[in-house]
Amino acid sequence: MTNELDTGLPSVRQVQTFIKDKTGVEVKLTTGDILHGQIVWQDPQYFRLVTGQQEGFLLYRAHVVYIKG
Amino acid sequence: MTNELDTGLPSVRQVQTFIKDKTGVEVKLTTGDILHGQIVWQDPQYFRLVTGQQEGFLLYRAHVVYIKG
Amino acid sequence: MTNELDTGLPSVRQVQTFIKDKTGVEVKLTTGDILHGQIVWQDPQYFRLVTGQQEGFLLYRAHVVYIKG
Amino acid sequence: MTNELDTGLPSVRQVQTFIKDKTGVEVKLTTGDILHGQIVWQDPQYFRLVTGQQEGFLLYRAHVVYIKG
Amino acid sequence: MTNELDTGLPSVRQVQTFIKDKTGVEVKLTTGDILHGQIVWQDPQYFRLVTGQQEGFLLYRAHVVYIKG
Amino acid sequence: MTNELDTGLPSVRQVQTFIKDKTGVEVKLTTGDILHGQIVWQDPQYFRLVTGQQEGFLLYRAHVVYIKG
Repeated sequence: MTNELDTGLPSVRQVQTFIKDKTGVEVKLTTGDILHGQIVWQDPQYFRLVTGQQEGFLLYRAHVVYIKG
Repeated sequence: MTNELDTGLPSVRQVQTFIKDKTGVEVKLTTGDILHGQIVWQDPQYFRLVTGQQEGFLLYRAHVVYIKG
Repeated sequence: MTNELDTGLPSVRQVQTFIKDKTGVEVKLTTGDILHGQIVWQDPQYFRLVTGQQEGFLLYRAHVVYIKG
Repeated sequence: MTNELDTGLPSVRQVQTFIKDKTGVEVKLTTGDILHGQIVWQDPQYFRLVTGQQEGFLLYRAHVVYIKG
Repeated sequence: MTNELDTGLPSVRQVQTFIKDKTGVEVKLTTGDILHGQIVWQDPQYFRLVTGQQEGFLLYRAHVVYIKG
Repeated sequence: MTNELDTGLPSVRQVQTFIKDKTGVEVKLTTGDILHGQIVWQDPQYFRLVTGQQEGFLLYRAHVVYIKG
């Protein structure tokens, strides 16, 4: 994993669209937890997710099994 | 994992064939979840899967244990 | 994972803010364990967390699924 | 993980032997699933396994805990 | 993961202190196992832990979720 | 993970000693399985383990949580 987001990648652009559009997403973690909220930023290692209750989560990218949205 | 798909790899070509042929595939995730749908694109880190119910999933490649198809 | 923290990354800065502000955080590990405490330092591979009971944990970064804070 | 198979490695040669000899193998996945079949090709990221029922699996190499054969 | 320990990293120095001081530590593994003992050496991929019963374990670093000490 | 074993690493030398001495070892896998046998070779990605029943296992190194011996 590099320290630069490759904005040419479809997955990076997809997430950028989620951020820009404030799309409500569902994320599933390797622990089986499911969170709902909005992604507010991404970097090569983490996503920042804020839930409807305004709880902030720093999510390790490699433990986000899927983003449904 | 590089930021370029190596289209010379058999696995990348196999997935490209799934995409082109709109093959219905079954994917199993590390969480034990099984999803059915079509892969619509791949990049080095993610697959995009759309189910029969038109739900979109951004699947972290390293959590897709197998693709059956 | 490099041996240098990239302080330009939002996630690194977020954690630096937790450290500086002595924010009480909740971390969830891949084992399902949840710990509460303060992050006292980070390096590219580990976080150091100290709980309210002054127990010290060297947490492998790649097993910290999320940091809630 | 590089994009080239290092055919000098014992493990790569072992799998090549399984392929050439059409050895029936048992593979165990991180999900706990056990599959039986023949490996038909390998690349740096995946194995292609075909079962006795002619079902094809693209197996993510890093989720194949062992190959028994 | 490089083949050189970066002795400038806080986590490497922390473990070096555990070794030098023969600190009794608790380690939790991804399997959920908890071991107690002393770390006798570290390299970039493994820790060597010896328990009170003088059992030796070669622990894969990436499966040590935390070291409590 | 490089394609060359660094024989200067303590962990590589430890395993080499197990091989040379035909030490009976116990290995624990991420799936929770425990195998007993002798390691007959290692490369950067795999161990080859042969059990007392002469069953051969190609073990993915990153799924071997510990080697007890």
